[in-house]
Amino acid sequence: MQDSVMAVTSHDVARLAGVSQPTVSRALRDQAGVSAVTRRRVREAARQLGYVPSHAGRALSTQTTGRIGIVSAELGNPFYPALLEPLHAALAERGYRAILLTDRGDAPVELEPLIDGSLDGVVLTTTERSSALPHELTRRGLPFVMLNRTVAGVCADACAADNRSGAAAVADLLVDLGHRRIGGVLGPESTSTGEERALGFRDRLAERGVPLSPRHVVRGPFAEATGRAGLRALLRADPAPTALFCGNDVVALGVCNAARAAGIAVPEQLSVIGFDDIPMAGWDLVDLTTVRTDLAAMARAAAQLITARIQAPAAPVRTVIVQSEIVLRRTHAPPPC
Amino acid sequence: MQDSVMAVTSHDVARLAGVSQPTVSRALRDQAGVSAVTRRRVREAARQLGYVPSHAGRALSTQTTGRIGIVSAELGNPFYPALLEPLHAALAERGYRAILLTDRGDAPVELEPLIDGSLDGVVLTTTERSSALPHELTRRGLPFVMLNRTVAGVCADACAADNRSGAAAVADLLVDLGHRRIGGVLGPESTSTGEERALGFRDRLAERGVPLSPRHVVRGPFAEATGRAGLRALLRADPAPTALFCGNDVVALGVCNAARAAGIAVPEQLSVIGFDDIPMAGWDLVDLTTVRTDLAAMARAAAQLITARIQAPAAPVRTVIVQSEIVLRRTHAPPPC
Repeated sequence: MQDSVMAVTSHDVARLAGVSQPTVSRALRDQAGVSAVTRRRVREAARQLGYVPSHAGRALSTQTTGRIGIVSAELGNPFYPALLEPLHAALAERGYRAILLTDRGDAPVELEPLIDGSLDGVVLTTTERSSALPHELTRRGLPFVMLNRTVAGVCADACAADNRSGAAAVADLLVDLGHRRIGGVLGPESTSTGEERALGFRDRLAERGVPLSPRHVVRGPFAEATGRAGLRALLRADPAPTALFCGNDVVALGVCNAARAAGIAVPEQLSVIGFDDIPMAGWDLVDLTTVRTDLAAMARAAAQLITARIQAPAAPVRTVIVQSEIVLRRTHAPPPC
Repeated sequence: MQDSVMAVTSHDVARLAGVSQPTVSRALRDQAGVSAVTRRRVREAARQLGYVPSHAGRALSTQTTGRIGIVSAELGNPFYPALLEPLHAALAERGYRAILLTDRGDAPVELEPLIDGSLDGVVLTTTERSSALPHELTRRGLPFVMLNRTVAGVCADACAADNRSGAAAVADLLVDLGHRRIGGVLGPESTSTGEERALGFRDRLAERGVPLSPRHVVRGPFAEATGRAGLRALLRADPAPTALFCGNDVVALGVCNAARAAGIAVPEQLSVIGFDDIPMAGWDLVDLTTVRTDLAAMARAAAQLITARIQAPAAPVRTVIVQSEIVLRRTHAPPPC
């Protein structure tokens, strides 16, 4: 049974539909020169036989694949599934299939599956500021969009959150609450998100006359362990900070976990603020005050950018910035007396 | 610049390396008939020119792709990233690139990208018991493995947790603690994991003389909202249960969130037990008593099964069951007096 089914070809479809094999190819690709009646007959024959055109053959003959690659190295970070699900849906609405590539290897290893002819375009979501990948894609002429994280000096479409003003709003909130010893468990300098949030926070604190002291700042990857280690390190400062802005929600969760373990009451003894508003930030066990970016809006904008870029490779480059807003929950309070 | 680089072909590599074009193809595919010296010279020339062989052309000419598809419909469920990261690593160790397909569509839509010639094999992780997909893959002869969820009546390699004995251990724990009004917020009957855990729990409770009352059971998808709605529904039972076994950790987190919102103390007033031991189950804010399955071991077994199946399509079918063990944290206690 397996052999007979495996052997179904476009010639079998042609025979059943009573047309030539090239007509089958044209009909299944919606190309011109095939009547609506014939197209229906061919599709019905293909369906009956369970015929599926070879992807590889199709890519070679038409130079399009209907596939867009999404590069994401941090699936374990709940931020990314929250971004990727709406991105996948938005691409599907535009007729593209999303292929998720989750490699962590160095740039040359990552490049090959992107430019091997199996993809029409790429959405990069976890690119580091020093990555060669955007430059390589530009050089090869493969359409791509930078989503969430951007790389300076790359002339390509991009969509990101307004990280600087979101972080500035956190600085205002903490100063307005009365905090004067404010610290940060900030994201990595190697990412645009980590760097922009750090700069927006630091600049606004300086403007407000409450400068960020270097001994009240630690930095690390966007991971729960960073928050955990960060709180332990900052507790050794004397005096210790009374409020912490975190690089993202996952880092803030690590700070809250370590505070619980150390018997430090949040927010009575320590205010903790995140960034992103991932779903679990709103859970009752967490109830995290954070900065919300509309991930679905970011995903829709990225889908629009990449499909437009595929259709018009030479059009002017666009950047979409999605606004952020602070979400007040239960991890902020005035400093302890 | 873009145009000149885009034009790099195997002929350019041949010219730079001083060999024929077929020799370039053979050298880059590690085929016989090329000396080690020539192979090195060709690879160096390809590297210098930035030449990447076309995936589509390679698939047509050698009939293998080096790619294995992973089908997972629930990236937003933290269980899946925790399973997929080690699966990806285990496949990479065996020389395969993992391609993640996250479609939710009906089976015919999902089938096409799996059998279009771009994949050597498939790992299914979120298959429902009524899914036609495993039967279709069997019919088409594409190697595949069912990981985590299995489908009865499908003759294919599978790797799953020992769901029944894990659930039975939870029943023993709760009865030993003294609970007599025990309930469940169980997973969907449409999945093997939901069904096996429900059966293992129900059967052991009956053996222990504390039968599970239908009015103390609700079922739903493996989602936080299921736990949240489940607790609200079970609180209406009179008398309400004093302990709940949940279909998985995400459901248990929903129960804990709803308990916090309702002012019910966990575990003093209500014991809550999960299943899977996803990373956040161990967070201090959560500290969930649950059943651990070694997800990395499951992923390694699945990688071994699919690569063996690709190499020996006619070998006998194997099933790997990974043991579960209960992890005692802070959400279980004796019933309130």
